[in-house]
Amino acid sequence: MYRTHNCGELNILDINKKVILSGWVHNIRILKKYIFIDLRDYYGITKLFIKKKYYLFKINNEYLIRIKGIVKKKNKNNIEVHVYKINIINKSKILPFNINSNGIPKVSKKLRLKYRYLDIRRKVIKDNLIKRSNIINKIRQYFLKKKFIELETPLLVNNTIEGARNFIIPSRNFKGKFYSLPQSPQIFKQLLMIGGIDKYFQIAKCFRDEDLRKDRQTEFLQLDIEISFINKIKNIIKLIEKFIKYIFKKFYNQRIIRFKKIKYNKAIKKYNTDKPNLINKIYNINIKIKKIKKKYNILSFILPNFLNIKNFKINKIIKIINIIFKKKYKKILIINNKNKYNNNFKKKKILNIIKKKFFSEYDILIIIIYNNNLKINKNKIFDKINKLLYNEAIYKKNILIPIWIINFPLFKYNIKNKKYYSYHHPFTCPIINNNKLSYKNYSKSYDLVINGIEIASGSIRINNYKLQKKIFNLLKIKKENINKNFKFFLNALKYGVPPHGGIGIGIDRLILLLLNKKDIKNLIPFPKNYYNKDIMLNSPSKINNNYLFKLGIKIIKKNKIYK
Amino acid sequence: MYRTHNCGELNILDINKKVILSGWVHNIRILKKYIFIDLRDYYGITKLFIKKKYYLFKINNEYLIRIKGIVKKKNKNNIEVHVYKINIINKSKILPFNINSNGIPKVSKKLRLKYRYLDIRRKVIKDNLIKRSNIINKIRQYFLKKKFIELETPLLVNNTIEGARNFIIPSRNFKGKFYSLPQSPQIFKQLLMIGGIDKYFQIAKCFRDEDLRKDRQTEFLQLDIEISFINKIKNIIKLIEKFIKYIFKKFYNQRIIRFKKIKYNKAIKKYNTDKPNLINKIYNINIKIKKIKKKYNILSFILPNFLNIKNFKINKIIKIINIIFKKKYKKILIINNKNKYNNNFKKKKILNIIKKKFFSEYDILIIIIYNNNLKINKNKIFDKINKLLYNEAIYKKNILIPIWIINFPLFKYNIKNKKYYSYHHPFTCPIINNNKLSYKNYSKSYDLVINGIEIASGSIRINNYKLQKKIFNLLKIKKENINKNFKFFLNALKYGVPPHGGIGIGIDRLILLLLNKKDIKNLIPFPKNYYNKDIMLNSPSKINNNYLFKLGIKIIKKNKIYK
Repeated sequence: MYRTHNCGELNILDINKKVILSGWVHNIRILKKYIFIDLRDYYGITKLFIKKKYYLFKINNEYLIRIKGIVKKKNKNNIEVHVYKINIINKSKILPFNINSNGIPKVSKKLRLKYRYLDIRRKVIKDNLIKRSNIINKIRQYFLKKKFIELETPLLVNNTIEGARNFIIPSRNFKGKFYSLPQSPQIFKQLLMIGGIDKYFQIAKCFRDEDLRKDRQTEFLQLDIEISFINKIKNIIKLIEKFIKYIFKKFYNQRIIRFKKIKYNKAIKKYNTDKPNLINKIYNINIKIKKIKKKYNILSFILPNFLNIKNFKINKIIKIINIIFKKKYKKILIINNKNKYNNNFKKKKILNIIKKKFFSEYDILIIIIYNNNLKINKNKIFDKINKLLYNEAIYKKNILIPIWIINFPLFKYNIKNKKYYSYHHPFTCPIINNNKLSYKNYSKSYDLVINGIEIASGSIRINNYKLQKKIFNLLKIKKENINKNFKFFLNALKYGVPPHGGIGIGIDRLILLLLNKKDIKNLIPFPKNYYNKDIMLNSPSKINNNYLFKLGIKIIKKNKIYK
Repeated sequence: MYRTHNCGELNILDINKKVILSGWVHNIRILKKYIFIDLRDYYGITKLFIKKKYYLFKINNEYLIRIKGIVKKKNKNNIEVHVYKINIINKSKILPFNINSNGIPKVSKKLRLKYRYLDIRRKVIKDNLIKRSNIINKIRQYFLKKKFIELETPLLVNNTIEGARNFIIPSRNFKGKFYSLPQSPQIFKQLLMIGGIDKYFQIAKCFRDEDLRKDRQTEFLQLDIEISFINKIKNIIKLIEKFIKYIFKKFYNQRIIRFKKIKYNKAIKKYNTDKPNLINKIYNINIKIKKIKKKYNILSFILPNFLNIKNFKINKIIKIINIIFKKKYKKILIINNKNKYNNNFKKKKILNIIKKKFFSEYDILIIIIYNNNLKINKNKIFDKINKLLYNEAIYKKNILIPIWIINFPLFKYNIKNKKYYSYHHPFTCPIINNNKLSYKNYSKSYDLVINGIEIASGSIRINNYKLQKKIFNLLKIKKENINKNFKFFLNALKYGVPPHGGIGIGIDRLILLLLNKKDIKNLIPFPKNYYNKDIMLNSPSKINNNYLFKLGIKIIKKNKIYK
């Protein structure tokens, strides 16, 4: 028997029990008469107290041992196990990096990926994986409770995309032909709606052959959702807002009070991006408000609307801004829409303009009006103020400001090859006024961006054969390509297709935000590196020619562009 | 608004409510003054009653319509909606097959696969998918409750197998190299154990490039399980028996009273297969028991041990066996181990031999002793008796007789190429006596077979570097292959690896048994055909040469061996 208890469960109530424990030697301290071991397993750490006479074999860190002992009181709240027998189950080499301290091992990320199975032994990575498992389960239960049906769709599908971003798979039975791994279950979930399924979801593996980013892996999980008998953006938005609020409240009690929503065009004008990070926003109001006289520069720092600033903290902010500006500032104002805080600014006119412009969106502003001659590095000031607010816990940790970007253009133009592409995908329902459909139309689409990260993307779909065909025509997809890839789908649109729409939510990014982490690789059991390489497996790798021959293909080009 | 209610929820309590419904025209009957429509959606069917004056457009089956109406009593328990407004949301072509009757459409299976999205509208397929979703969710909840952690493992992995049964994927970043789709998460789940994860499970997509069978698709789901700190077969068997009992009780109340267990060698001797179907077993005892005199042929039909046969049914069996044998039989005996039934056979000696031989395993036998001169088709007789028992409900529907086959050989020999292969896989822990390891060893392995279908397969794994290396050597895997594919894994075995073991359970087959179905294709949202072809998508398909060029490969052989 390996254990009567695990290393996480013994406590004061177990005193004088005889126990068997198995686990890894997390720490060992050898004194003259005694040996102290922290024994670790999946569940926790138990302290062992061993008299020299029972320590018969040399034991190092990460040795897997089994001990017999008796639970004893260590102090008021803690126990230790007095060991009278030790077996070594399995020895261990010295690890390539330390896993028994709390910090990140001081080795390259590459080395940690190579020994991923050891990195997983670290508490922080293990805890991430446990949280990941919990979050995904909660997501699943949420939608099952709402009577969604979870169905899995195929991973060996057809390649429908022209650009080389799909992974393809040679077929043995049909040599010269290929499967493809899906970038999303888009077509299948629409077919499920056509098949009369009302509310579908799936936590789907998706694939995109791109160089990685910190917030995306080449194989990633997508919470894929589709609903029938809806034709309005708000139907999905409402559902997802509820879900996002639920999941952020459930995990680490993060509140999201208010979702913003803005049309794509306005977002571009206002933020110069369709992925605005509203939490890190600094405005040079000087540029924005023309009526303000030139002798002032005004720098405005916006706080998220759900925070309460208490007066004593405001004084601290003012003090520190003084330091930042070396007292050369002109005036600091901290105001809210009830004029509650230090609002002794005399230029009422300017104040009113500022209020009018921003209070529709934000409740609290810090406005710094400074001398025009003063040369300042605005970003530096922002960073300092940000840090200050963060340290003062005026920012709650993990503030989230979600914003919906809606009504994207239906098409985007590629200047290089002078072609039009779908902004989202060709199944997105256009917004049609006066019966006109051209490259200038907008679409019933919506992306959810939280703190500058695109979390979700979706649209109402086309459920009309003729409209779908028009879109393909506008995209100038060759007739043979339509026949090859979309003919069956166009045909499916002839059989009483319900109005429907849906969304795909990036699970890995959602978890990234939920756990307030920066690198998605720490949240995935076995991640790949930035170049889609699995450092541990050394994958991808060579395949012998005989194998390739049986699949009817041959290598014509080799490279090693990445290490 | 598309609906105030769905088509499954209105009842007597809703009478006189104004409602809006949307759905498909399941059936339409046009009389002189009235029109009757069965309106169908995901949730059910509602009957519509329409006066001619409201029927303004021609409506056919599968048109998607929206109606406004008032709920009225139809008879004591049922309602119908009296319609005063109809909108056609979307028209429908005439379907390629009928979906509004209960039977299987009288068209080819191929046509149904081509129009899978329409086949899904059929109640039986839709219900299968709902049940599938429920079952998979219950499986998940079962293991989560038992504190297993669910983790997903990569699908873009290394190809480690020599035979061409893995799908491979050319890498764009590393031209000339390939990923592979996993046949199972075997290595990863072992690495998770090495990483200190205690109890893992996953409902994993797995891939095998083989021609399909009725009970397997080329991409399939596996309930993948691995546990640390165990080294005995019984640890896993106990867990899985509990689970199987739970899931069969939960779904359709199917009882499994007793699991059998037999060593591989004995199974081969006794059943001549390692996948015995104990429910359909007929013995020619004449062959088996040498002591019985030649003048009798004895055919024995064995009933599963958990059935109760009542006397009146036994008489019926005897009567029907009389008919089958045209009264030429010698003697029918129906006996149980308490000699409760018609046990008037005089040859006590023979009877005792038979009992001794079979009552260790079965409680009830039907033994037919017939004249040696009588030529009979044993299989035909078996079929007839089987049908009889089934019709008489002596078989409960969906009887399940599970049997564990344990201690498989560690290796199997391929006569053709004179090579040894692992019977399961090279990570299976051998049973070692007297420190001897050779091609003759057995292993700590177990398959679960239910009614002749292999449902699960697993083993205790090797957790010792030297032993693992010995196995690779016995398999005569080339050093370069070990270095390429298994070096990292051998290395991982040096870091205090816990004893561990696990199992993989075929989800699709489990569902097949749970729902008492024959063809797995009816239980999967979008199945492929026997040749791994997706008839609907027409996948696999051609890829243009430019695309292939960018991936560094070229087609050298084309074929169309299958339609």
